[in-house]
Formats: sequence, C-alpha cells, structure tokens
Amino acid sequence: METLGYYNGRIGELAEMTVPMTDRACYFGDGVYDATYARNHRIYCLDEHVERFYNSAGLVRIEIPYTKDQLKALLQELVEKVDDGEQFVYWQITRGAATREHAFPRVPASLWVMLRPAKVQDTYQRLKLLSLEDTRFLHCNIKTLNLLPNVLAAQQVAEAGCDEAVFHRGEMVTECAHSNVHILKGGILKTHPTDHLILPGIARGNLIRVCKQRNVPVDETPFTMQELLDADEVIVSSSGSFCMGVDTVDGRPVGGRAPELLKQLQDDLMADYLTRTSV
Amino acid sequence: METLGYYNGRIGELAEMTVPMTDRACYFGDGVYDATYARNHRIYCLDEHVERFYNSAGLVRIEIPYTKDQLKALLQELVEKVDDGEQFVYWQITRGAATREHAFPRVPASLWVMLRPAKVQDTYQRLKLLSLEDTRFLHCNIKTLNLLPNVLAAQQVAEAGCDEAVFHRGEMVTECAHSNVHILKGGILKTHPTDHLILPGIARGNLIRVCKQRNVPVDETPFTMQELLDADEVIVSSSGSFCMGVDTVDGRPVGGRAPELLKQLQDDLMADYLTRTSV
Repeated sequence: METLGYYNGRIGELAEMTVPMTDRACYFGDGVYDATYARNHRIYCLDEHVERFYNSAGLVRIEIPYTKDQLKALLQELVEKVDDGEQFVYWQITRGAATREHAFPRVPASLWVMLRPAKVQDTYQRLKLLSLEDTRFLHCNIKTLNLLPNVLAAQQVAEAGCDEAVFHRGEMVTECAHSNVHILKGGILKTHPTDHLILPGIARGNLIRVCKQRNVPVDETPFTMQELLDADEVIVSSSGSFCMGVDTVDGRPVGGRAPELLKQLQDDLMADYLTRTSV
Repeated sequence: METLGYYNGRIGELAEMTVPMTDRACYFGDGVYDATYARNHRIYCLDEHVERFYNSAGLVRIEIPYTKDQLKALLQELVEKVDDGEQFVYWQITRGAATREHAFPRVPASLWVMLRPAKVQDTYQRLKLLSLEDTRFLHCNIKTLNLLPNVLAAQQVAEAGCDEAVFHRGEMVTECAHSNVHILKGGILKTHPTDHLILPGIARGNLIRVCKQRNVPVDETPFTMQELLDADEVIVSSSGSFCMGVDTVDGRPVGGRAPELLKQLQDDLMADYLTRTSV
C-alpha cells in the first residue's frame, strides 16, 4: 500500500478511508494522539510515544481498549503494510461514536491510525521563527485533537515566510506551534519545565539525555523572549526535526554563537535515530 | 427520515453517515459550527445563528462556499426531510479533507449538517451549577470544534449531580460550559461583555432584548463569583434552554429573590420561541 488508514479494524488507502460522522473527533475534537517516524519499517522511539499516548488518554479519561504491547504490535504490523519504509506514523484514540452530547457516552473508544511516506527534516538546517502570543488552553501537556490555535499559527508562519512559531505568554516563552523550544547560553541548555503550558516532547527528552551525556547542564526553568533573543543558540525540537538551530526571530538574527556544541548534539541525535531505525 | 446527516451533498440517517478520515475536523478540530432548534419544521432564530456562523468562520479564515441565503435554504430543506418537526439543528464547516499538515490546504471547505428529534429544555426549571476554573483558550468568542475542555467540564458536572458548570478565571465569572450566565441584582441584569472570553450567545442577545423591552437595565460588565453568589437571581441562557434560574452553586443555595421578574423574562422568551415557530 502507498498510504494506510485504520479505523477500528478497517484498513484502506488513507484517501479512501471513511469514519462515522458521529465519532466525537468530528464535532468535539474529543481525543488524543501521538506521532513519530519510521525508517526501514522500524518505528522510532515507539515505547516513549506509546507511553505518552496512554498518559494523554488518561488525562482526558479515555480508556484505550488495548494493552500497550497490543498497540505497539498493531502499529508495527500496519507500518509493514506500507511500501515505503520511511513514514509518518500517526495514531489517535477518540471517545467513540455517539449522539452529540457533551458528557461521556457509554461506547467503546475508537482507534485511528494514519500512515504515509515522509522523511524527517534535515536537522542541520536553520529555522526562521515568528513570535506569537500563546492563546491556547491550559492543557498543553495533553496531546489533544484541539489544535485550531496551532493551525492558525502555522498558517501565519507560512504567510510570513517563516518555518515555525515561537509562543510566549507575556514575556515567558512556552513552546512552538508543533515543537518545543530551548536555548543554549554559556554552555547550559535552558528549557521550559514540563508543566501544563508545554507538551512533554519525546525529542525534548532525547535532547536532554544527549546534553547530560556530554556534561551540558540542563536547567528546566521558564525563560523570556529577551533571553531567547540573547541566547548563544536557539534550538527547536520535535519528533520530525530532532534539534534544529534558529537563524532569525521576527527577522532579527539570533543564535549562531555555539555552532560546535549545537552540531555535537545534532550528531548525537541523528546517530540515535539512524542506529535505532537501521535494518 | 428519523434523523439526518449531510456531508457535502450526501444525505442519510445520522448513524449511517460517513465522512473522509482525512477531513481536518477529525484530527485538528479545524472547523466552526452553530446550532439551534426547530419546531413545526421552523428553525428558531435562523438569521442570527447563520450570521454568527459566518462570523466564526471568518475569524478562523474558513471560506464558506455558499451565500447565507443558500445555506438557510439548504437547512430549511433538510429540516423538512425529518419526520419530527422538533429538532436539534446542528451544522458545521471544516477546512476540508487533505493530508495532515497544519497550514491551510488548497481544498474546498466541507459542510456538515446533523439533525435529530429533540425538544428545548423546560426553561422554568432551576439548575444546579458546579463552579470550575476556566482553563479554555482565549478564543471563546469563536464557536469552534475545539471543545474538549467543555466535554470534560460536562462530565464533571454530571458526576457531581449538577446540570451545568459555571466557569471563572480567578474571581471573574466568564460563562458556562455550553451556556452564558448572567445575574439579576437590584433590578439590573449584569452579564459578561462579548469579548474573547465568552461566546456571543443568541439566547444572551434575546435575553438582553426582552430586558430592554421591560425597562430592565443591562450592564455588560464582568462580575465576580461573589457577586453571583449574592445575586437576586442567577440566569443561565442557551439556544436550548433560553432563560433558566439557578438553585445552587456547589451545593450552596443562590438566587430565588426575584422570581417574578425572572418569570416575566422567561414568559417573554418562551412566547417569542412559540410565536416564531408556530405553524
């Protein structure tokens, strides 16, 4: 298959798959998801993504009718059905199909999977950021399907000729529209703590791990837009980009003052990806 | 038909209707909706709801591929296909079906309609409220499909044996989980202004109109939880409930000190509904 869609046991090419109109994803965004990449049909960091997926579901009280091992086996089985081994691997659980009433219905949850050929970004490229006020809800730690503010930010970014948004609540930087953001200053990595204002990124966790392996101290404290503008390097991390440097914020040059350390971290993270997805 | 689902021209019983898995409603909640009730196959306040729907769509930059008159004619046509003339009339527009990328795709928007038999609530009943911190995003003026916080609140309400949530940001009352909230004090109606923290309710507008007709001054200023607890009456309004009094908040008795004025407003609003939906 070229792509794959899965909905509660049914499988087909993504563009041909249908779902019930009454699934609560369709009118409440009532679900959570997770996503990563596969290479050589091997799913990168699957354990960590599945762990976070169950955590997200628990936080919105959706019961996943599978064990973690069953879900991992299913995802692996589906990934192997797609011809191209380099894939974007996306799955979500929704609170089932029912008449539209806000409180929880007594129906089983629905499992969705969407697979399509895709490659991770070149982590050595530098990004242009657009700063935007963070107007999202206070549940950003949960990977929900309520992503309209992220969609609107992504469109503003595209129209500004940039690559990602950097969100701030007043002066405090939180994260990007679909990535985490960090700074290097004086040899220390500073990153927003995993509270309700940011997603606990798997790539963020990997970045912290390689920093510690290289004896780069990690300071999980909120930082300001001014600190970001003054940083030696600004780093954007996500499951599809790993550890990208930043060129400009709102057109102003930033970072570029610790390129060797940045490259070491990128090399470590790329090596981890290539090793864990090799044949 | 007993119920009706409509998706981009296809029609069927709601439980049998399907939609593409790649519709952006399914994974981003990327759409807006509106809803009202019909009686005798006449849709209540259709002009006002369609006006707000276009406004919501404009705020998230979804282009509706119909004129307002075309949409109204379509909704009327569909409502007439359902056997029972008392219906919940729900419609939404989503940013189309496409590969999952955050920025806007170049595809036409999708129009969805869901109709099912339902009656408005008995507006003369009194409600039990549960107070909850308002953790939603700062776009509550837009009637979006990003409703997970409202869903979670509704479930908490049900488990607490209550009827609706009253949200507050710190001390300031905003609105309910799917209604607006107002207070009567000393013969004045106080209600949160239509900023980005509340939905500009059509029922709220109707309530303000009948207040003005009865020379009840209307003060559109934010009020506090303490003011709500001390009010003569607390009023909850929505398109399905019009103007309901409140009995308790978190189990503490509230209101009940201006029942005659409350009943006058309820009578006015019920009369408006019955007149405008009579055969």
